[in-house]
Amino acid sequence: MSTTMQQAVLRAPLDHTPQAGDFALVETARPECPEGGVLVRLSHVSMDPYVGARLRGRHMGEAAPEPLREAIPGHGVGAVEESRCAIPEGAMVHMMGAGWRDYAPALEGDVRVIAPGALSASVFLSALGMPGLTAWAGMTQLAKVTDGDVVLIDAAAGAVGGAAGQIARARGAAKVIGIAGGAEKSALVRESYGFDACIDYRAEGWRDALAEAAAGGISVHFENVSSEILTLALTHMKPYGRAVLCGLAAHYHSDAPAPGIPFGLIIGKRASLHGLVVYDFYDRWDEFLAECQPLAEAGRLVIAEDIADGLAEAPAVFERLMAGRNRGKALIAL
Amino acid sequence: MSTTMQQAVLRAPLDHTPQAGDFALVETARPECPEGGVLVRLSHVSMDPYVGARLRGRHMGEAAPEPLREAIPGHGVGAVEESRCAIPEGAMVHMMGAGWRDYAPALEGDVRVIAPGALSASVFLSALGMPGLTAWAGMTQLAKVTDGDVVLIDAAAGAVGGAAGQIARARGAAKVIGIAGGAEKSALVRESYGFDACIDYRAEGWRDALAEAAAGGISVHFENVSSEILTLALTHMKPYGRAVLCGLAAHYHSDAPAPGIPFGLIIGKRASLHGLVVYDFYDRWDEFLAECQPLAEAGRLVIAEDIADGLAEAPAVFERLMAGRNRGKALIAL
Repeated sequence: MSTTMQQAVLRAPLDHTPQAGDFALVETARPECPEGGVLVRLSHVSMDPYVGARLRGRHMGEAAPEPLREAIPGHGVGAVEESRCAIPEGAMVHMMGAGWRDYAPALEGDVRVIAPGALSASVFLSALGMPGLTAWAGMTQLAKVTDGDVVLIDAAAGAVGGAAGQIARARGAAKVIGIAGGAEKSALVRESYGFDACIDYRAEGWRDALAEAAAGGISVHFENVSSEILTLALTHMKPYGRAVLCGLAAHYHSDAPAPGIPFGLIIGKRASLHGLVVYDFYDRWDEFLAECQPLAEAGRLVIAEDIADGLAEAPAVFERLMAGRNRGKALIAL
Repeated sequence: MSTTMQQAVLRAPLDHTPQAGDFALVETARPECPEGGVLVRLSHVSMDPYVGARLRGRHMGEAAPEPLREAIPGHGVGAVEESRCAIPEGAMVHMMGAGWRDYAPALEGDVRVIAPGALSASVFLSALGMPGLTAWAGMTQLAKVTDGDVVLIDAAAGAVGGAAGQIARARGAAKVIGIAGGAEKSALVRESYGFDACIDYRAEGWRDALAEAAAGGISVHFENVSSEILTLALTHMKPYGRAVLCGLAAHYHSDAPAPGIPFGLIIGKRASLHGLVVYDFYDRWDEFLAECQPLAEAGRLVIAEDIADGLAEAPAVFERLMAGRNRGKALIAL
């Protein structure tokens, strides 16, 4: 067993959208297995869009990681290499506080034993990980998608959006429409994720294409991008439609406040809007997995993975993620 | 029986906030009782804030009344003077399409028989009329107020806001806080409507007073005024609070769009926002009255009335309503 640990860190405090050159790889002593916990040999770590804001200290009031010392935040999966608690060595676990590194210590209560079976462990960072939980919470707990719903989802090629559409379908949605950036992403959404339609917002006339796809009205909208898209979605909404407000990817790196949502449009559509913070649903993982792991095992909930092979490749893949050029869930394989 | 009808009309098309001088009184032939309907001798007619926008053709796409010919819109109550349907003469009825006039014809399906008992018939235009229905729909059907809720309501001295607070209380709210303009209105809200507190937004330091009254957080907000107040209310909201978006009184006469509602605040508070259009609840009158008429009879749902004595006095009272200087529900007694 290695006595050292590799980790990716910030070179210096950040005040701009992270680029590949902002990261450094450092080697330190391998952490000890804590009393009452485990030492995990990570096999996959997630790269998450919100981390772009977090690295600048602008996500939910959480501090940015200390340059040159603390690993970039990410969730991880891996095998328990040492245990000083009830979790047996060799067990596969998921953990939030993994970070971009190859070993991570954790207390027993901070890991969750997983049973990948025939699935890749990486799936527990995408369709069955935080993105999947976010999608599940939005579609089943807030929008309460049911038979016959017509569902619109933006950032549909992303892990959250892609999972949301597939979970909505499994819950009985009559039609699932995506919005994504570029022809390649739109094809992924239609062909791999099985959406009925996907509008490429970079294409000429996309607003007309959306109006056509949404003719008859949508009953549910899942917003991941901006208040402008939400406002557009509201104009296509049937009375008493529901919108889940999940994220503002378009504004993560902007200093200007996002434009507001028109009050009169909400009243006119008798719409319900629901703010979603996935942290609130951490204690619902078992319920989420009970519904979604069978879907994943049956191939009805799939998320493409954009995998960096090793920590050295991670900064370049993260820069691609920040620029919206990733294709599916961005991960690091260790 | 009189063979003529008095009615209040616009002198000319309007393009400004209505003032007393914009109205005229005209006398025409008394309408006939329609086949399958009734002719109602109105005893009270409502003056409604939204009519300020309606008179300029700016409410829900409805046309303004034709100058010199069509009565100003208002709901009415009165006794059936002639009947050509199953409703007996002498029955008391409520009707939407009354207008500012002393006689109104209506088809049987367009009136609702009421049983005022010991209550004044005018109550069916305030606490048990459209304002009450609006309040009931917002509090019980959208916000679903229940035991322990802390409820904030603006325009609390108005009929909708005043009724909303009293209905919330009857449903078990732990605390009801109002916002109103001026010391006199605030006293009405506290003393007659029984709110726990009422913040006078015209007083120095009112934002601090609100923060103090709302310490610990509100769980429900009922918005009648502006997106600025809604935004302020959201800052005082507990996680998973609910807001009902009912009206934008502050913007009825503005040509500028109301500022939007901050997206990030909705997410941060995990708030749910619900647009309310009272028209959707017309078919729930029986349910509303079953809950609220006993409250009114018990003195637990009271709305002050600001009554114009006759059509001649109505324009001045309406101008006061437009300026926010009315005290309670504005009505015309005929």
